[in-house]
Amino acid sequence: MTAPNIAAAIEAMSHLEVDTKPASVKTKSRDFFWYSPVLKDRLDGLVADFVVSPRNEAEVIEVLKICYEHDVPVTTRGAGTGNYGQAIPLAGGCVLHLNLMNAVKEIHPGRTIVEPGCLLKDIDAATKEHSGQEIRLFSSTWATATIGGFIAGGSGGVGGVRWGGLRDVGNIIRLRVVTMEAEPRVLEITGEELHRVSHAYGTNGIITEIEIPLAPAYDWVELFLSFKDFTEALTYCYDLVGCDGMLIKLATVFEAPIAKDYFQRVAPYVEADDVVVALMVAPHAMSGFQTFSARYDGADVIYRSDDHDWARHPGHVFEYAWNHTTLRALKVDPSITYLQVGYGTDDPISLVNKMREMFSPEVLQHVEVTRQGGRVGMGGLSLVKFSDEARLDEIVALHEAEGAMIFNPHRYTLEEGGRQSTDERQLEFKREADPKGLLNPGKMIAWDDPDWGYDQMYAYPGLRKAAE
Amino acid sequence: MTAPNIAAAIEAMSHLEVDTKPASVKTKSRDFFWYSPVLKDRLDGLVADFVVSPRNEAEVIEVLKICYEHDVPVTTRGAGTGNYGQAIPLAGGCVLHLNLMNAVKEIHPGRTIVEPGCLLKDIDAATKEHSGQEIRLFSSTWATATIGGFIAGGSGGVGGVRWGGLRDVGNIIRLRVVTMEAEPRVLEITGEELHRVSHAYGTNGIITEIEIPLAPAYDWVELFLSFKDFTEALTYCYDLVGCDGMLIKLATVFEAPIAKDYFQRVAPYVEADDVVVALMVAPHAMSGFQTFSARYDGADVIYRSDDHDWARHPGHVFEYAWNHTTLRALKVDPSITYLQVGYGTDDPISLVNKMREMFSPEVLQHVEVTRQGGRVGMGGLSLVKFSDEARLDEIVALHEAEGAMIFNPHRYTLEEGGRQSTDERQLEFKREADPKGLLNPGKMIAWDDPDWGYDQMYAYPGLRKAAE
Ligand SMILES: Cc1cc2nc3c(=O)[nH]c(=O)nc-3n(C[C@H](O)[C@H](O)[C@H](O)COP(=O)(O)OP(=O)(O)OC[C@H]3O[C@@H](n4cnc5c(N)ncnc54)[C@H](O)[C@@H]3O)c2cc1C
Ligand SMILES: Cc1cc2nc3c(=O)[nH]c(=O)nc-3n(C[C@H](O)[C@H](O)[C@H](O)COP(=O)(O)OP(=O)(O)OC[C@H]3O[C@@H](n4cnc5c(N)ncnc54)[C@H](O)[C@@H]3O)c2cc1C
Repeated sequence: MTAPNIAAAIEAMSHLEVDTKPASVKTKSRDFFWYSPVLKDRLDGLVADFVVSPRNEAEVIEVLKICYEHDVPVTTRGAGTGNYGQAIPLAGGCVLHLNLMNAVKEIHPGRTIVEPGCLLKDIDAATKEHSGQEIRLFSSTWATATIGGFIAGGSGGVGGVRWGGLRDVGNIIRLRVVTMEAEPRVLEITGEELHRVSHAYGTNGIITEIEIPLAPAYDWVELFLSFKDFTEALTYCYDLVGCDGMLIKLATVFEAPIAKDYFQRVAPYVEADDVVVALMVAPHAMSGFQTFSARYDGADVIYRSDDHDWARHPGHVFEYAWNHTTLRALKVDPSITYLQVGYGTDDPISLVNKMREMFSPEVLQHVEVTRQGGRVGMGGLSLVKFSDEARLDEIVALHEAEGAMIFNPHRYTLEEGGRQSTDERQLEFKREADPKGLLNPGKMIAWDDPDWGYDQMYAYPGLRKAAE
Repeated sequence: MTAPNIAAAIEAMSHLEVDTKPASVKTKSRDFFWYSPVLKDRLDGLVADFVVSPRNEAEVIEVLKICYEHDVPVTTRGAGTGNYGQAIPLAGGCVLHLNLMNAVKEIHPGRTIVEPGCLLKDIDAATKEHSGQEIRLFSSTWATATIGGFIAGGSGGVGGVRWGGLRDVGNIIRLRVVTMEAEPRVLEITGEELHRVSHAYGTNGIITEIEIPLAPAYDWVELFLSFKDFTEALTYCYDLVGCDGMLIKLATVFEAPIAKDYFQRVAPYVEADDVVVALMVAPHAMSGFQTFSARYDGADVIYRSDDHDWARHPGHVFEYAWNHTTLRALKVDPSITYLQVGYGTDDPISLVNKMREMFSPEVLQHVEVTRQGGRVGMGGLSLVKFSDEARLDEIVALHEAEGAMIFNPHRYTLEEGGRQSTDERQLEFKREADPKGLLNPGKMIAWDDPDWGYDQMYAYPGLRKAAE
């Protein structure tokens, strides 16, 4: 990369909403990378030179044009709730903050068109109010995260029990993307091409408009159940998700003593040996839910949002699930970190149990049940008691040896957080859309170092600390 | 059974809507039993003594009380579109016609409460108009059948690709049922007890109110596709239904030359060797549908309801699917009949192909893809060129020998049309709710002859022809 001319870029943007105040630039250069002790060591203190908040697509184009001209790296930011340093400007430069582009533009039966900076919860509020609809899938950071960040950085979440993952065909309808060129182009992306930019960490284009499907909004009944037996809790959830006539939105299993130790408002109602299940059930499915649950001796409903006497409201149950589990554990025990595990669909219960036998309590099972390719599958965001990097790598290797797939959250590159291989579609599109390689630099190994062998953790040579 | 006193019963009902005109009584004593050459021989000419159409539950209770007192058999009738002689009064007596009890009583988010005589299409019209909702599942006789008949006699249909079968937990919320006793009781039935009366052919109670879940109503795009390869068409549908992010409502495969020979308005657009697929896709899923379809070389869209130039409108595609396929074939070739086959979820494509190899063209594959226990499964309503009963029985036996389950539509009893075994829940409830055995007599072998061995077709001794 040619050295950036930061001053010239800021100068050229003087009519835009630019922020150069060190304190706020620092804040907007960080995300939730500190979940990982591995990334914490490496990414702490990285900071952009300035932040710009475009008000619309035309201003996004302006910013990209200026940064292209002056060789300034651009790292896009939604709300900065990502976990892998996705939104951290590794090489400094410009943080393109989309917080002002937050309109819900259109709502139709089954779909909506929104701007990228819209918070997930704000989309739901608008679509529910408009026509009793809501988004199919959301990350558990629903209250704070943007839809653009979810699509560019997330993978799925609440609703996955019914709709699968974010990148499953049908879950994104259309993206409008601006390229990083001398003359930025605006592209409408649909179909197979969606894979170019979804979950690409903003390395190959800026998403300026999103069309996603909607599902009917219901007053979901949120529940906690307790079980004494871990396998029974897993089986219960697996079977429940397999009931095609039961409309549910979340099914999560927490090994004991996660709930007792880390869920402060749940703790008074459980014992240390209680396995806890979190569910979201459609109100009109509650009768079927009762029927189903009665088949499982060990299932004990300890909380339902529509009828409870808990002294302190626990909040949304989904804010205990997905990556909120890790957050809650971290707050109590800062030595906790996590792993993302794919248990697949063939016999996920056995695989989860095997991992539990091998690692509990060093690794505690937190399992999300989802639909995967038309079948019931399981994924884990396992809580790991961190000792050192070598042991963490060993745990990863042992999982993989047993057939449990690891999506490593202790890496900041696309490849290492995914399948450790080049995504040709994303790389090819980056060549086309970001010829100077200025978008979120350091996040795509294939761009920097096509021959990288994955034998060790990638270290982006361009890392630029604040102190430098 | 004690001999019925028909005259006394009619007399006691003189204030009700009673019909004793032979022509209309005869019409209302018939259903679509004639689909089966086997049943046609045995059930033709069976007729009730009179028909009564209660206006409300109180009148249902009155009728049952009177019939109980005078030992008159009561066969309930919705619209009489059932296929197994379900609604045929084998022992004469009273046909309880629910056509006047057709109100949509309440509509809420996700559910509705209706009277049993309401047509499926009328529920949809009301719920769509009210709040953009529709029923999850309907038989392809949507335009003519009642919800009561669907629940008491049907098994599933359009929508099963997403919601599974009618009796899967969650697909019926509540039934209100009147018993056949000296003092009829009104029972509210939910949970596991739903299995007592759903698909019980009205042998153990009259359903007077139904609470069922609703799904969002969309302007479904209805499609026909053609393929040259049968396995590719099957695989295409299997994979499509496995896309958790794709909202579809129907996926049906017709072996060649079903479409060319039996679908008159489709025939001009296909060749004799075309395998045809019928689909219903949500409008907002059409983009994903295109993406998905492009992965299959052989998939050729020949009709879509929102954009076509067919000279003669083919009507709803679902009226080519489920048991409408048989109807269309029968109209062209009266020697056609059918079998209902369960191919399960383990490897349905291979099993379908095996049956095709063994029997085509004597048996032509018509396959419905549905969700079964959280997985993609297949069921067949195979078209059978009928030669004689012995050969039909042989075809049945050969299917079963290969692991394809047969629900025999050439039998008029619950057991023979199902799993050839007693449903203890239904039997037990009949003991309680119909102690004299007057409800739809002859349909439950377990009631008539508990030791029946299923080595031959059951012949109800009480059959009473009109001529007698
Ligand atoms: C407690 C907690 C729970 C979480 N739960 C989940 C979960 O359930 N599921 C899940 O998938 N994730 C989860 N995450 C991760 C993260 O919260 C989500 O992915 C979230 O949706 C990201 O949104 P954001 O606005 O914060 O994105 P950011 O963190 O701001 O950005 C994420 C990535 O997207 C890029 N980006 C943002 N906007 C655009 C754009 N318009 N165009 C191009 N690139 C863009 C950024 O450059 C960055 O690489 C969780 C994180 C935390 C801390
Ligand atoms: C062309 C064609 C296509 C079909 N497609 C399908 C399909 O896709 N799926 C499917 O499941 N079926 C199908 N069927 C069978 C039938 O049409 C459906 O099951 C239909 O829903 C039955 O409704 P009905 O009102 O006609 O019931 P009827 O035939 O009148 O009655 C069916 C049974 O239910 C009993 N019954 C009716 N109402 C009550 C009540 N209120 N209380 C207690 N018992 C009652 C009757 O005594 C009888 O035993 C098809 C039939 C045809 C001819």
